[in-house]
Amino acid sequence: MDQSDSLIATAHALADAARAAIRPYFRQPGLEADNKLAGGFDPVTAGDRAAELAMRDVLRDMRPDDAIIGEEFGQTDGKSGISWVLDPIDGTRGFLSGTPTWGVLIAAADETGPIFGVIDQPYIGERFWGGLGQAAMDGPFGPRPLKTLGSRPLSEAIIFTTFPEVGSKAEGAAFHQVAQTCRLTRYGMDCYAYALLAAGHIDVVIEAGLSNYDIQAPIAVIQAAGGIVTDWQGGPAHQGGRVLAAAGAEQHAAALEILRHVPLD
Amino acid sequence: MDQSDSLIATAHALADAARAAIRPYFRQPGLEADNKLAGGFDPVTAGDRAAELAMRDVLRDMRPDDAIIGEEFGQTDGKSGISWVLDPIDGTRGFLSGTPTWGVLIAAADETGPIFGVIDQPYIGERFWGGLGQAAMDGPFGPRPLKTLGSRPLSEAIIFTTFPEVGSKAEGAAFHQVAQTCRLTRYGMDCYAYALLAAGHIDVVIEAGLSNYDIQAPIAVIQAAGGIVTDWQGGPAHQGGRVLAAAGAEQHAAALEILRHVPLD
Repeated sequence: MDQSDSLIATAHALADAARAAIRPYFRQPGLEADNKLAGGFDPVTAGDRAAELAMRDVLRDMRPDDAIIGEEFGQTDGKSGISWVLDPIDGTRGFLSGTPTWGVLIAAADETGPIFGVIDQPYIGERFWGGLGQAAMDGPFGPRPLKTLGSRPLSEAIIFTTFPEVGSKAEGAAFHQVAQTCRLTRYGMDCYAYALLAAGHIDVVIEAGLSNYDIQAPIAVIQAAGGIVTDWQGGPAHQGGRVLAAAGAEQHAAALEILRHVPLD
Repeated sequence: MDQSDSLIATAHALADAARAAIRPYFRQPGLEADNKLAGGFDPVTAGDRAAELAMRDVLRDMRPDDAIIGEEFGQTDGKSGISWVLDPIDGTRGFLSGTPTWGVLIAAADETGPIFGVIDQPYIGERFWGGLGQAAMDGPFGPRPLKTLGSRPLSEAIIFTTFPEVGSKAEGAAFHQVAQTCRLTRYGMDCYAYALLAAGHIDVVIEAGLSNYDIQAPIAVIQAAGGIVTDWQGGPAHQGGRVLAAAGAEQHAAALEILRHVPLD
């Protein structure tokens, strides 16, 4: 098996393992959440931990020389030049609320950034993946290729973010300035919004305060589907922070023109 | 078949018909939306119309003497004392965006209000129903009973609304005043939030500016599952307008204490 085939097969095995590990914890009565950040509400469920452990077991079997960067259990060094960037449950608040819009995020990265990514929604049974020559999804309607909407003016665009406040006051204000020029603004979809963008349903996703494991899988999937993901200065976004994802060049340029004026923290 | 069995069988047949009618229109490229309200964005899709027509065909066969109140095609008089209140796609903006959180709303009502309701999500293949002695759901995890969380303080509560602005400025301010006392606030779920409340995942849903077809099915489902749905004065909500849905008496009373001070329009 060549490197690409191995990475693709491993990514799907990781997503399968995470699905099985998380399923017993979703929508179960008495689900317990820790309060990870004192004063803030950032629950970590038993499902989060179980899924990352299950994925680490898969990597130990299939790709033992790769590094791992996991949301729950930190960094494990490797020697292959490939790192797996894992967020077992992106959207823990949505998960706790029973919504079907959280996801498992899996990216394989090399020194250039993410080269293959998976966004998996275990409850719906829906998976979006891209990179290494692929861009596709599978779910209730069966397999389909992924392709973004392409370029169009913001005045025709559908824009998403998860929280209306977005991030800092300046970050929130910039988001709403972009949103005001769009046709439709929606909230609350967590990583599922990136999947909708890759699949050609929406135009723009803007977020702030992300970690690398929140965005590397979406970057790979969206870029493979023809979209653009950068930070708010137009540079690489794979280290997290402020993210602008767009279905085409026109939406990206118009949103960037507003976002780039937000002072760095 | 007695009246209850007939109504329950008809409601499920309506949901089945709507699912089949809508499916060809969801997530299809080139989906066209009319602009129903001049100046506002209120898309009506071809799926919306196809689903209501399919449901009207089912009623013509199964319950020809009942009245129909449909979002798309208005009122059809009956002579049985039963009215079917139909919203073929609740959450058309979510539908256009590809999210899996819109739904088909079906209620059977008599002179007292809704007595049986269905919230159906055709993409996930998930259905929530309640009334006439039943409160249950079926979906990816198989059939389950529906039961709300029960009473607990707002400080432990998860609250939802679809749009952060909610309605008028005063309505939005009142929502955010309630939300500030809650543990967690989420947006963007359309009618799916009512299903999450009935299924015991969230505590409170607050909305304003609803029509009767937006709320009659959620009322029947939530009440059957042990929850409470009223307007912002504590009175019946089945004519639409401002709605407060709660998983238990304590959340309902605490939210009502804030909402009841909002002046009537």
